[in-house]
Amino acid sequence: MDAELRYDARGLIPAVVQDATTGAVLMVAWMNAAALRLTQASGEAHFWSRSRGALWHKGATSGNVQRVREIRYDCDGDTLLLLVDPAGPACHTGAMSCFYRTLAVGQAGDEGV
Amino acid sequence: MDAELRYDARGLIPAVVQDATTGAVLMVAWMNAAALRLTQASGEAHFWSRSRGALWHKGATSGNVQRVREIRYDCDGDTLLLLVDPAGPACHTGAMSCFYRTLAVGQAGDEGV
Repeated sequence: MDAELRYDARGLIPAVVQDATTGAVLMVAWMNAAALRLTQASGEAHFWSRSRGALWHKGATSGNVQRVREIRYDCDGDTLLLLVDPAGPACHTGAMSCFYRTLAVGQAGDEGV
Repeated sequence: MDAELRYDARGLIPAVVQDATTGAVLMVAWMNAAALRLTQASGEAHFWSRSRGALWHKGATSGNVQRVREIRYDCDGDTLLLLVDPAGPACHTGAMSCFYRTLAVGQAGDEGV
């Protein structure tokens, strides 16, 4: 129920997208209420593009749609988790996941990567 | 290198926390630059509590620290992904993951959950 969700001051909520099969975290994007409703109704991930200020059907151009198996939300209702079957890479770089770079751990932060 | 990261107007960046072994997405929290440096230096997850306006060493009270194996960041540098070994439940409710509730998919959004 949308009433349990807490959108931020911009009317947005972050959505973590995870590959339902591999468990890989693919990307994080933002939804507004309309994007969530479109996602629920169509079964394909829709987001709100903050840079373009427009609804965004993931994969509409690239073909790399994300079929949504499950939508979860967290204990305080301010983050979503989508379990998806991706038709192709999540990242505009062609990487399967947007999280393909690492920072150093276990040393002073200034030396991070 | 912190220079590749994009903090928001509040100086914060969202961090997705994933169990390095099971792949479960445990929680999403926020970091500022100091929390990230503490995390890198100590190897245990530190966040910025927006509600308390203070640095937060996850598990300092409960004992459920999160040992950080890897920190990744996404293609546009505005989200972090921590791969962790959790000493116990991530959620204040006692659940292993904060994402223990689901919304309906494949029907009109108004009927969600």
